[in-house]
This record gives sequence, structure tokens and C-alpha cells, in this order.
Amino acid sequence: MTDTDIAILGLGPMGRALAAAALAAGRSTVVWNRTPQRAAPLVEQGAVLAPSAGDAVAGARVTVACLLDYSAVRACVAPVRDRFGGTLVNLSSGPAAQARAMADWAGQHGIDYLDGAILTPAPTIGTPAATVLYSGARRSYERNRRTLEAFGGTGVHLGEDAGAAAAYEMALLDVFAMSVGGLAHAFALAMAEGIEPAAFARFARGIGAMLPGMADRFADQLTEGRFPADISSIASAGSAMAHVADAATARGIDAAPLRAVQRIVDRAVAAGHGGDSYARLAQLLGEPAA
Amino acid sequence: MTDTDIAILGLGPMGRALAAAALAAGRSTVVWNRTPQRAAPLVEQGAVLAPSAGDAVAGARVTVACLLDYSAVRACVAPVRDRFGGTLVNLSSGPAAQARAMADWAGQHGIDYLDGAILTPAPTIGTPAATVLYSGARRSYERNRRTLEAFGGTGVHLGEDAGAAAAYEMALLDVFAMSVGGLAHAFALAMAEGIEPAAFARFARGIGAMLPGMADRFADQLTEGRFPADISSIASAGSAMAHVADAATARGIDAAPLRAVQRIVDRAVAAGHGGDSYARLAQLLGEPAA
Ligand SMILES: NC(=O)c1ccc[n+]([C@@H]2O[C@H](COP(=O)([O-])OP(=O)(O)OC[C@H]3O[C@@H](n4cnc5c(N)ncnc54)[C@H](OP(=O)(O)O)[C@@H]3O)[C@@H](O)[C@H]2O)c1
Ligand SMILES: NC(=O)c1ccc[n+]([C@@H]2O[C@H](COP(=O)([O-])OP(=O)(O)OC[C@H]3O[C@@H](n4cnc5c(N)ncnc54)[C@H](OP(=O)(O)O)[C@@H]3O)[C@@H](O)[C@H]2O)c1
Repeated sequence: MTDTDIAILGLGPMGRALAAAALAAGRSTVVWNRTPQRAAPLVEQGAVLAPSAGDAVAGARVTVACLLDYSAVRACVAPVRDRFGGTLVNLSSGPAAQARAMADWAGQHGIDYLDGAILTPAPTIGTPAATVLYSGARRSYERNRRTLEAFGGTGVHLGEDAGAAAAYEMALLDVFAMSVGGLAHAFALAMAEGIEPAAFARFARGIGAMLPGMADRFADQLTEGRFPADISSIASAGSAMAHVADAATARGIDAAPLRAVQRIVDRAVAAGHGGDSYARLAQLLGEPAA
Repeated sequence: MTDTDIAILGLGPMGRALAAAALAAGRSTVVWNRTPQRAAPLVEQGAVLAPSAGDAVAGARVTVACLLDYSAVRACVAPVRDRFGGTLVNLSSGPAAQARAMADWAGQHGIDYLDGAILTPAPTIGTPAATVLYSGARRSYERNRRTLEAFGGTGVHLGEDAGAAAAYEMALLDVFAMSVGGLAHAFALAMAEGIEPAAFARFARGIGAMLPGMADRFADQLTEGRFPADISSIASAGSAMAHVADAATARGIDAAPLRAVQRIVDRAVAAGHGGDSYARLAQLLGEPAA
């Protein structure tokens, strides 16, 4: 009955990218979406639109679920749990606990299951820039590895704990969401100051270039447990943040996210860590509140 | 009386980097700091430690102030306002309004003044990676341009409005502060999930690589006023954010910054923009609240 290489459940921007990459890699591809209209461009590229989720999963060696969240996946796959012919690979976002619960559920129903998390945006899929983490049974990963290579780039199997990929994803989404929120806020503030979006983007691009070095420094300092402020101190950052939040407020722009970061900085300064580097903030956030 | 090329007021991490770069470029350099002990390594490299701020500024063609904020600059330069021999270049961080006020003050006292903002971290100073914005009288900029090249990299004069550099800096600090806050939070969450800092850094580095493309897309969409969610939608991001905030809260980690971003996302979804791209958030933030 497994007469297709890949079934894709979910045709949001990411599901569409996965399906297009599978087709581009020469894999026979079945797609299904709650709203079937979204499948049209993929059908033109050679995908087969399954009339139901059950029909999609029944014939596929690998079923990739890429939906809004784990509840959506549950809603789609639970009714068709007896029809799985191959491995269910869930690339939807969600907390580690939900990934583990889904793996348990799959185990109870005899469905071969692999959890995963996509770390790079939809346009990277099928290119060397894609990064996808997998976790769960190594055997399931090895069996499907070649097929999953269609998605391109770096595929990493983190280990047997089905929740591992989701745990990484949650923490990465944390910094991603804050950066996106910051970018939106920064553009709003720049435009309120009369700066053209394109002129601002020219310099905003540079902020991204600082993050890799900062991530490495955070890791080094957190591993060593020492926080020398050789580049910049928490107190200096806190002072600058206060000015930014004031400037935003003066322009009528909601500064709540920045104020919330500032409160964390203020707590660190009050605890005597103003002269330390930013990495100390991670340590303090992880400590139980006094 | 102008017998030195550069005087540096302030020897925090950034002031020290500026002084070291001036020395490395072969400029005669005088330094001054409220806490004079910090000057020792620079004196070893050939800097002259001025006994007072007045002595520092009196003999210098360019005085660079790099202190915590504009109040600190005011506190240092006001008492010695009659001793300036050359141009005062203020590279301390602060709101555009304070930069304009400082330029007015300098004008009233016959001090040639240039405002500026350093967009890159201390270790970039004196290297091609440095970016420094200047604003204020073009004549003052042109006169000192060669000297300021000691700081390396890209120097850009934005125009006659003394507040322009500060306006850019505030908006850039906005996204920078949020990204740093997100990074600290992400490391705390990752460590709470049992992920080693170095293992997490490996993937966290990649987040920085997404920001330049995102900044460009924000600029394009904000300029055109159209917000197609071809890569990801506000609703999808909001759903993922809620999971991250819940995961943090479950681990006892203060999720207030992320919840504040989430509230902005929720407002956008409630206003019917859930299917739009993130750039729409910038537009909504800039609109007066209903
Ligand atoms: N987009 C990216 O760049 C990116 C990057 C990394 C990770 N991810 C993750 O990938 C997953 C998919 O993201 P996405 O951007 O493609 O779009 P999305 O907006 O997160 O999800 C849209 C998909 O979920 C379906 N869906 C939602 N609720 C459903 C339900 N109750 N029952 C059945 N289907 C339901 C939608 O069906 P309809 O079409 O019928 O509404 C659509 O197929 C998410 O977990 C996201 O966090 C995305
Ligand atoms: N570090 C970076 O990577 C970076 C990057 C871009 C921009 N900047 C900006 O550059 C400026 C300097 O930053 P920084 O990192 O070098 O350190 P900082 O911690 O922001 O400032 C420290 C300097 O300010 C002095 N100071 C503070 N309050 C003072 C007062 N009331 N009177 C006199 N001096 C006072 C300190 O003197 P004492 O030594 O006596 O305390 C020290 O010289 C800031 O505005 C910062 O936002 C820094």
C-alpha cells in the first residue's frame, strides 16, 4: 500500500515549501490540506491532492505533518490512526512535553513516529540553508533519512528523546520572536522619527551580524560561570534601553516589551550585577525567584 | 593650544576601544576618566592621562565624549566649556532630543559640535567592521573626518540635524536590546530543558542570519504598504510564541517580555491581520491607539 514517497499534511507557507522541495527532489508526493484550494500550485508541479487525510497517509512511506501546532496535528491524524502505512514525521511547532505525548500516542497505536523542528524560514527549504532537527527513535530516523534529505541543508538527529527537537525549537523561537518583535518596534520608532524604512534597513541589517558572536560569548561565559563585561555591561545596556523606551513612549508607541526586558535588567543591577556582561541575565533568569 | 589630535573623555569598554584605535592610527591621544585608574593600560600604549577634563579638552583638535549618557557628558563638559580648543564629538548614547539640546548648548558657548552614534560593539572599533554615524554641521564633519577615520570601518554623515544619528541609534538599540533580552531568555530556557549552552549556541547563531533578510523585507513591505505572508504569518508566530511563553513559565522563567510581544501580536490578530506578515506589526505599532 505504500506507493508514494512523501505525504505532506498542511499547506501553509512551510508545508508548501516542503512539498515543493519533495517534488524538486523527484519524490512522488501526495498533499492534503484542510482547505484544499491551497494545493493548486503544487498539483501543477506534479503533486497529487489526496481527497482526505486518511488517503494521504495510507499510501505514504513518510507522512510529514506541518500544521499550526500539535493540537491541529492531533485533530488531523487521530481519526486516521489505523491507516498509516509508514512513518509519521511531525514538523509542527510546540512544547517538548507535547512532542513526547505525541510520541507516546503514536507508540500506543503502532505508528512509527519521529518528531522534528524546522529552524529556518520557508524559503530555505530545499536549499543548503535549511536546518531541520529530528528526535525520537534513531531507527526511524535512519530509515527515512534519505527521503528527508529532500528538504535540503542540515538534518540533525538529536537523540532518542522525542522532545529534544521541540526543546531546542522553543528556545530558538524565544530569541527569534523577541528579535522580530524588536524589529517591528524599531521600524515603528524609526518611521516615527522620520527615517525612511529602506534607510533604516541598511543599518538594521547589521544587528543580525552581532548575534552569532553574542551567542558564542553567552555559551562560553555560562559554561565557565564568569561574566566579565569586556564588551558592554548590563548597567550600560539598561541605561540605553531606558532612553529607547522613553523615546518610543514619547512617540505614542507601546514600549511594554522593552520595559519588560528593562525590568529584568533592573533586577540584575539591583542584585549587584550591573558591572557584568549580558550573559549574567540568562543565569539570573534561570534561578528561582527570591 | 591644540597640540593633541584626540582627547577621549570616558574610558568604559567603548572609550577604551576608541582610545586604543586612535593610538593604533598614530594619533597623539589624551585620555580622561572620572575614575582615572582605568587609563593605565592606555598610558602603557602611549596615551597621556589628563589630570582633569579641562586639561584634556583644552589641547585637543577633537574631543570625543563616550560616557554613559548625555547627562554624564553635560556633567563633564559644562564646567570646562571655556577651555575647548577644537571640536566636541559626542558618541554617547541618548535620545535625539537630547542630542539636539546638546548641539544648541554647544552653539551657545561657541563650541564646534558634532553628534554621533556607534552602531557596532567595542571590539569592532579600529577594524573594517566598525560603523559610526555622525550628524550636525557638515563643515565640522569634513574638518575632522580624517581624524575620525582612526575608529575604522564605515563613517557616515547623515546631515545637518544633530539629532539624526541619535534617532537611528535609538531605533537600532530597540531591536538590539530585544534581541539580547531574547538571547538571555533563550539560554535560560534551553538550560532549564537540559541543553548545554554550547550545543544551544550552535543553532542560536543561525537566528542572526535571518535578521538582514527580515529587515529588508520589512522595509520593502512598509514602503509598499502591502503585507503578504508568503514566508510566515502573524497568527502562526503568535501561536508559536504562546507555546514558548508557556514553556518558560512552566520552568519558572519570567516570560513577561515575550508576553508583551504576544499582546501586540494578539491585538494585530484581533484587528484582522493574523494572515499578514510580521511587517504589519510595525505599521500597527506606529498607529495611534484606538
Ligand atoms: N513559515 C515558516 O517559515 C516556519 C519556520 C519554522 C517553523 N514553522 C512551523 O511550521 C508549522 C507550519 O507553519 P506555516 O507557516 O506553514 O503555517 P501555519 O499558519 O503555522 O499553519 C497553517 C497550516 O495549519 C493548518 N491548520 C491550522 N489549524 C488546523 C486544524 N485545527 N486542523 C487542520 N489543519 C489546521 C492550516 O490549514 P488551512 O490552510 O486549512 O488553514 C495550514 O495547513 C508551524 O508549526 C510553524 O511554527 C514555520
Ligand atoms: N560598549 C559598547 O560595545 C557600545 C556600543 C555602542 C555604543 N556604546 C555607547 O557608548 C557609551 C559608552 O559605553 P561604554 O560601554 O564604554 O560604558 P558605559 O558603562 O556606558 O559608560 C562608562 C563611562 O561613563 C562614565 N560615567 C558614567 N557616569 C558618569 C558621570 N556622571 N560623570 C562622569 N563620567 C561618568 C564612566 O566613568 P567611570 O569609569 O568613572 O565609572 C565611564 O567612563 C554609552 O553611551 C554606550 O551606550 C557602547
